Amino acid sequence: MREGPASDGSDGDDRGGEGSGAAAPDDDLTHTTADGDVQMVDVGAKPDTNRRAVARGEIRLTPSTVEAIRNDEVGKGDVLATARVGAIRAVKHTWESIPMCHAIPVTNVDTEFAVADDRVELTVAVETTGKTGCEMEALEGVTTGLNVVWDMVKAAEKDASGEYPDTRIADVEVASKEKRPIEE
Amino acid sequence: MREGPASDGSDGDDRGGEGSGAAAPDDDLTHTTADGDVQMVDVGAKPDTNRRAVARGEIRLTPSTVEAIRNDEVGKGDVLATARVGAIRAVKHTWESIPMCHAIPVTNVDTEFAVADDRVELTVAVETTGKTGCEMEALEGVTTGLNVVWDMVKAAEKDASGEYPDTRIADVEVASKEKRPIEE
Amino acid sequence: MREGPASDGSDGDDRGGEGSGAAAPDDDLTHTTADGDVQMVDVGAKPDTNRRAVARGEIRLTPSTVEAIRNDEVGKGDVLATARVGAIRAVKHTWESIPMCHAIPVTNVDTEFAVADDRVELTVAVETTGKTGCEMEALEGVTTGLNVVWDMVKAAEKDASGEYPDTRIADVEVASKEKRPIEE
Amino acid sequence: MREGPASDGSDGDDRGGEGSGAAAPDDDLTHTTADGDVQMVDVGAKPDTNRRAVARGEIRLTPSTVEAIRNDEVGKGDVLATARVGAIRAVKHTWESIPMCHAIPVTNVDTEFAVADDRVELTVAVETTGKTGCEMEALEGVTTGLNVVWDMVKAAEKDASGEYPDTRIADVEVASKEKRPIEE
Amino acid sequence: MREGPASDGSDGDDRGGEGSGAAAPDDDLTHTTADGDVQMVDVGAKPDTNRRAVARGEIRLTPSTVEAIRNDEVGKGDVLATARVGAIRAVKHTWESIPMCHAIPVTNVDTEFAVADDRVELTVAVETTGKTGCEMEALEGVTTGLNVVWDMVKAAEKDASGEYPDTRIADVEVASKEKRPIEE
Amino acid sequence: MREGPASDGSDGDDRGGEGSGAAAPDDDLTHTTADGDVQMVDVGAKPDTNRRAVARGEIRLTPSTVEAIRNDEVGKGDVLATARVGAIRAVKHTWESIPMCHAIPVTNVDTEFAVADDRVELTVAVETTGKTGCEMEALEGVTTGLNVVWDMVKAAEKDASGEYPDTRIADVEVASKEKRPIEE
Repeated sequence: MREGPASDGSDGDDRGGEGSGAAAPDDDLTHTTADGDVQMVDVGAKPDTNRRAVARGEIRLTPSTVEAIRNDEVGKGDVLATARVGAIRAVKHTWESIPMCHAIPVTNVDTEFAVADDRVELTVAVETTGKTGCEMEALEGVTTGLNVVWDMVKAAEKDASGEYPDTRIADVEVASKEKRPIEE
Repeated sequence: MREGPASDGSDGDDRGGEGSGAAAPDDDLTHTTADGDVQMVDVGAKPDTNRRAVARGEIRLTPSTVEAIRNDEVGKGDVLATARVGAIRAVKHTWESIPMCHAIPVTNVDTEFAVADDRVELTVAVETTGKTGCEMEALEGVTTGLNVVWDMVKAAEKDASGEYPDTRIADVEVASKEKRPIEE
Repeated sequence: MREGPASDGSDGDDRGGEGSGAAAPDDDLTHTTADGDVQMVDVGAKPDTNRRAVARGEIRLTPSTVEAIRNDEVGKGDVLATARVGAIRAVKHTWESIPMCHAIPVTNVDTEFAVADDRVELTVAVETTGKTGCEMEALEGVTTGLNVVWDMVKAAEKDASGEYPDTRIADVEVASKEKRPIEE
Repeated sequence: MREGPASDGSDGDDRGGEGSGAAAPDDDLTHTTADGDVQMVDVGAKPDTNRRAVARGEIRLTPSTVEAIRNDEVGKGDVLATARVGAIRAVKHTWESIPMCHAIPVTNVDTEFAVADDRVELTVAVETTGKTGCEMEALEGVTTGLNVVWDMVKAAEKDASGEYPDTRIADVEVASKEKRPIEE
Repeated sequence: MREGPASDGSDGDDRGGEGSGAAAPDDDLTHTTADGDVQMVDVGAKPDTNRRAVARGEIRLTPSTVEAIRNDEVGKGDVLATARVGAIRAVKHTWESIPMCHAIPVTNVDTEFAVADDRVELTVAVETTGKTGCEMEALEGVTTGLNVVWDMVKAAEKDASGEYPDTRIADVEVASKEKRPIEE
Repeated sequence: MREGPASDGSDGDDRGGEGSGAAAPDDDLTHTTADGDVQMVDVGAKPDTNRRAVARGEIRLTPSTVEAIRNDEVGKGDVLATARVGAIRAVKHTWESIPMCHAIPVTNVDTEFAVADDRVELTVAVETTGKTGCEMEALEGVTTGLNVVWDMVKAAEKDASGEYPDTRIADVEVASKEKRPIEE
């Protein structure tokens, strides 16, 4: 339906080693047109594919807060369970949160928390059978999931003046991506 | 309407130096009940107050991507304008994204991008006249706004194997909080 | 701003013993106009008030499913924690789910599960400082919270033909309502 | 709770007589992992299928309210029309309301009200071509649709003290489920 | 809390004759900063006020379609009832649809359809007690309400080639605005 | 799964020249049943197809406002960029805004603004691979996109009494529709 060369050669979702061939060299910002206007990427001609993306990040906390999360009496299960639900919700709502994202069929979400002495790490894996990658879904799951942890421990992390001297979210990155044809 | 001692003394939003008096020592995880169940904080008895919270964070990018964002021809205005809209939307939707957050009347949102050689910094200030703090709103604005930047530069940041070796979101923190009575 | 008699005398939210005076006798379906058209109730002239509504309901389950929910090894905490989050979310989204509901400031939500031999009971209390009652919020919390329980135990409740012979949601009702002026 | 090779044998959506083969006997709570953490079910390897689920439930009302609903002058058409729209909306939003549900392509929704002397019954049939069952969609349509009826008749159902002595939602159940391959 | 002159003197919602004093002459695009960046308007210092805005518009239809809408047998009540629900929903969701809008407490929505020989006119009145005007809410109610009418009569309006030669939405305008202090 | 004649012969989305054969003559309001109840159209038996719909419309403005939009100093890029994001968002949310619409996989959205002396024209093209047409998506993109423009220029368009004497949205229409089989 689109005959022009506009969306030939790349789409911002599978450049390079994932098998899509050589990318056009000046095609680096595919959400903007030649005129600099923002746009969604046309994925109509792309095949459905099995894709998986894994993102991770961490929230740095005071050791006493981590201890409280670990301690069953103060509701460890529920704190992380709530963050888990929040992360899954964020994955499913990425098409709303990221303006240029398409709605894709999310077939699986895995969330995993690792509690260290001064931080909680969150890894989110997302799988889809759709036409675009799902790293934005994984990233939204990680950042919102970590924000939920922050929300749950606010009182424990604040200092005497109501500020958060030690709390921060760090090292949010895409750990891996995979793409392979759908076997039928 | 609530007579019990359940929510006396603190609420997770204004402990310590913000004038709420001494917090109960074991009241560190206010989103969980004595039984460890998750809950919203009861804010019914709290007065409306002018509050302001500022959060900031950054996305590390390759210098060539930053150059492309800066370059008018590739749509700098629109990339950051889209991220700005995404950040504001995230602020307004925090009551949905963070399961235990209340919906509060957001009266102002300021977003500011600073483009350095290898990163884009985003600062989000949120103001409210409601009964709870708004640092979660500011944090959601920062993390989702940075994710929008990531989405807009995906093609530029991927390496030959489709991974993101240099991209990461870092140093997300609450820069400041203020609270003062509403003058009438 | 509204001069006509259209919304005089009642509002569907505080008839009778709650102190609003005598209701007009034919004012029983306040979401419909004299012409039978559906409408929201005009609450602009109503004062802010402290209100609380409690709803409850139950889901009937096979005893073995209840046993599985009770058993820590199979994730009791997480099943009920997820239903709790779902109930709170439903309370906050009632203005979307019930077409003629206003968005009101929800100041508190209490959720409580009681696990009996063949059922799980859910009680949801909602408090607001707004201009209308909050029983619809409490009811949406109960019914969606119970649906989340159903979703979590689907595999355990299905019989050999994939049907649910014993599962049902029952006795959903408003247990109590209160209203009193805001003390300032 | 998921011990096997990830999603072999069962998934909570098509156990038993629906043709999916023998279900693992201890696979009763598929939304929780072996560690008791909540999760979505991985449906990536499941084929698209035609599925249909029918749920029903009822709201008990005072006879005079039912009479008012039946009476054209007080807007019968609009009351039930509004509940119908609310039920369809709830079906389409189930992926948001039920935290572990996937978004599925809903291809058809049928809603049917039966007005008896002291109750209104609502039956909702949902059809999908997706990878999971749609009984949760049908249940959400029934419970929210009945809540909309409640909201529309609030003033008629309240007694002199503002309570609802006779109103209740009851007998919400899944009436039938079907699954068959997509013919191409 | 905001000391700078940034938001002095105007706010885009009550310039001129509504009593806000003289507007700064170059303050015409208040959703953009001095640097041309988009922003929300800071309404924190504005008092709560009673406001009402009325918008109207129309959809031009073939006379046979209008006749079908009028004819009870083909569901006139339900077509307009659905459009009414859609218009009210759009009013309540304006804070999401219009990126720079604040969420305001909508206290009343009136929708009125007038069916002429070749068109359906829709008037939507919105009232709020908030800090900003509500004309965008009224406009969103009108345009989405008319789109719902279009959706309901699609089959009747299409010609033999599937196009809509006669259908169009026209003359969407703000009919009136009012603002007055809240009496307490 | 549906054997009855209820949805035979037409579906409101591809009557006439688009190749669906002769439409039933009395099947003009396909969102209502024989009883006049509103309904979604059953699309379960319809094949996936490549579809494209283009809608357009315009907002009439005072020449000085258009001049301000054109002028880089007052943020032209951001005003239209925000409207563009709002239009794309509205396209993606049509399944929520239009009560009887299905959620369809939107594969592409093109937005184009044309700035004339006394108006801004907006054209929105939407493409899908789903089972129904996408003209409602294009129309929602146009009307909400134009409303965003209105919101951005409110202060410039108001007269001394706070009214909008010259502003109006006009000539919203479907410019073209296409449908063709998916090549595999």
